[in-house]
Amino acid sequence: MEYPEPIRSKLSQLGIEIGDKIRLVREDGLIIEGILMPRPRGANFIVVKLRNGYNVGIAWDKVKEITLIEKKKRYEVAKAKGVPKREGLPTVKIIGTGGTIASKIDYETGAVKPAMSAEELVEDIPELLDVANIEAEQILEILSENMEPKYWEKIALAVHAELLRDEIAGVIVAHGTDTMAYTSSALAFAIQDLNKPVVFTGAQRSSDRPSSDAAFNLMASVVFATKANAAEVVVTMHGETGDTYAVVHRATRVRKFHSTRRDAFQSVCAEPLAYVWPWAYEVKMISEPLNRRSNIEPKVLPKFDPRVLQVKAYPGMPDLLEIALEKGYRGVIIEGTGMGHVPQRLVETIKRLTDAGVFVGVTTQCIHGTVNLNVYSTGREMLDAGAVPLEDMLAEVATVKLMWALGNYGNDLEKVREIMLKPIAGEIRNRRTINLYRLSYPEI
Amino acid sequence: MEYPEPIRSKLSQLGIEIGDKIRLVREDGLIIEGILMPRPRGANFIVVKLRNGYNVGIAWDKVKEITLIEKKKRYEVAKAKGVPKREGLPTVKIIGTGGTIASKIDYETGAVKPAMSAEELVEDIPELLDVANIEAEQILEILSENMEPKYWEKIALAVHAELLRDEIAGVIVAHGTDTMAYTSSALAFAIQDLNKPVVFTGAQRSSDRPSSDAAFNLMASVVFATKANAAEVVVTMHGETGDTYAVVHRATRVRKFHSTRRDAFQSVCAEPLAYVWPWAYEVKMISEPLNRRSNIEPKVLPKFDPRVLQVKAYPGMPDLLEIALEKGYRGVIIEGTGMGHVPQRLVETIKRLTDAGVFVGVTTQCIHGTVNLNVYSTGREMLDAGAVPLEDMLAEVATVKLMWALGNYGNDLEKVREIMLKPIAGEIRNRRTINLYRLSYPEI
Repeated sequence: MEYPEPIRSKLSQLGIEIGDKIRLVREDGLIIEGILMPRPRGANFIVVKLRNGYNVGIAWDKVKEITLIEKKKRYEVAKAKGVPKREGLPTVKIIGTGGTIASKIDYETGAVKPAMSAEELVEDIPELLDVANIEAEQILEILSENMEPKYWEKIALAVHAELLRDEIAGVIVAHGTDTMAYTSSALAFAIQDLNKPVVFTGAQRSSDRPSSDAAFNLMASVVFATKANAAEVVVTMHGETGDTYAVVHRATRVRKFHSTRRDAFQSVCAEPLAYVWPWAYEVKMISEPLNRRSNIEPKVLPKFDPRVLQVKAYPGMPDLLEIALEKGYRGVIIEGTGMGHVPQRLVETIKRLTDAGVFVGVTTQCIHGTVNLNVYSTGREMLDAGAVPLEDMLAEVATVKLMWALGNYGNDLEKVREIMLKPIAGEIRNRRTINLYRLSYPEI
Repeated sequence: MEYPEPIRSKLSQLGIEIGDKIRLVREDGLIIEGILMPRPRGANFIVVKLRNGYNVGIAWDKVKEITLIEKKKRYEVAKAKGVPKREGLPTVKIIGTGGTIASKIDYETGAVKPAMSAEELVEDIPELLDVANIEAEQILEILSENMEPKYWEKIALAVHAELLRDEIAGVIVAHGTDTMAYTSSALAFAIQDLNKPVVFTGAQRSSDRPSSDAAFNLMASVVFATKANAAEVVVTMHGETGDTYAVVHRATRVRKFHSTRRDAFQSVCAEPLAYVWPWAYEVKMISEPLNRRSNIEPKVLPKFDPRVLQVKAYPGMPDLLEIALEKGYRGVIIEGTGMGHVPQRLVETIKRLTDAGVFVGVTTQCIHGTVNLNVYSTGREMLDAGAVPLEDMLAEVATVKLMWALGNYGNDLEKVREIMLKPIAGEIRNRRTINLYRLSYPEI
């Protein structure tokens, strides 16, 4: 959006357009260098994106001096469709689904709405084009709390199609952070025999906010997608509160652990896969990834059956398991207490569920650690009733995996059970991971 | 339980009884000193509890030498009821409710069952009596997955009665770890104007297992209950995997984060209250506690209305909120995604719930961080529908608090709402706690 008068005239007189690199001097002597951003609606200040990805706003009446440093690179995607690709650079596909990373503040209501296309996203971050030729496509436009299994299918098919193209080095999915870990694990199951990286990324603050992490995370994702010899589905987000490095997490081992912080995502019972310093174009692998493969064709099994009930046990809970019977659900994932327990009074419902052919899987609400139904008498009764302990699978991942198993193999319950217990995308860790638990308090 | 022949005869000949301190020399030269424990059923080895709380088992046919070091202290509780208290030592009341801390392995099935009385617990750990005169009482005998709000009332009344006794320095509740955080926060709300510490503790391994943490945690709790100038409800559990120190957490800020590790409990968005080195009788306060008070009489509000539905949002979820209407529930706690969202399609049910006088509170499944329904459009719609954002209250704590608010003020919905938003026992943190989030991966 253009700036109002008199800002517009002044900029035009200096030959400055949105996207150009400029230098501002404020009346108190502060000097700011960065990319001129579109103005926020109705505000009388000028917004500059700093090198570190932060946006700052300067009140126009405090601006003493403004200079053009460098014209915007004119080979960017949105305005220059059909511009020839630059030789020697790999190509990355960005698939937009909505979410904060593609959002702007509605300055009338103050709320955030999805508003940017993937093309605009790229236009906002010209640095991306130093690393890769970027193709961008918007396939959904929703905030991620509204994500549904039917959209996972759509995303899986779109990503799969890109993976088949030889010229694509990697695929990035821009996604809201609320349910990013659910969708990333959905794709980890749906796309098999991966040949290239599929990188989910998002933002905790919308891209027109001063503290936006959109540019940083997208840049880190493009760097990982082009430089890493990894063929896995991952989540790449801020690694700490500053703008130093991003952390790459495996899709089935990651969880959003903070409602607002930029380093909200953490791996659970697993080391991160890698760290990325986006502005240095540097990737450091921490774990051994599955490598890129050119001799294999990825397959897609994109169906999800949403008739899975996820239920967390708590003292005084009603018999929520019964709802699966009442509503004709095909699977239940229990977030049990401790090693996976429910109140003993619910064991009888587990029996009725499994007798009716409903799969009942057990995880722990502790989040870290493995379930074990052999230690306590309640656990043994749950086993006798047909409950299936799902090792150290995260509850959210177990729910997604069960939707996927039922969607693709639902006619064969024995097969569904077999799949739920078989590691497919790192969701069950064969090695003991007890040492990967870290404490929230300082050790003394 | 006594040892079989020929172990029994040999022990008897040396004047050694269960509970005595002994020295064993194994044929390979290994020397072990500790307390002789009851034998595990059917096993042909001898079990010794080491100073650090661990039990070790030595095959009898490998024992080369066995010596008595010290007879068991004979002033312990269970065998010597009525023994005069020792002058100068404070008195601690231990209330047993069951759980692993009061459990032994059933060696026939291999499962763990609650089997020890609180008295037996104390008998097992004679060191407790070096620090305090111990009174012990068993009021429940359940594994904690079977904990129910009606039992919270029973525990609250029992604890409250002890707090009124001048001679009691502090009260300890031995509880299963699965739902300990639920019960401890229940007591934090139910007992007001606390005058002394109420310490919850438990064990991740039963006390007849080699790796049991029962002795360590109980000792740390007694040390805290006698030495700390704190009048709060807390959870005291292992601080790391070794046997160095225990960590004391505030009841409303703690969560079980690992299914099996001994350091499973962690404070969320809060520093721990204290560290305890049990064998050195040492307490180090980390946060500022509410202090002991002699001029105040604790009150108890022990009612809990269990008709509260706790629901976690996930993609593809059915309209679980409706169940609260169908079953006549009086409150709902939502574990929303991110800042507290549900899928937009559920907002209409929130409206129907609040129209029907059902309280709908919102927390985040991220666990860390504050909810905020003002940022995104879905959140604003939830607010318009009458949902109440509960700041940084943990979901489990919000559920317990709502049961308590409805139990004691349920006829006045306006009052319930007011109470839910008012910090009562540290469950809402007034200060910003964003810096208390710690990462599970090493910072680089």
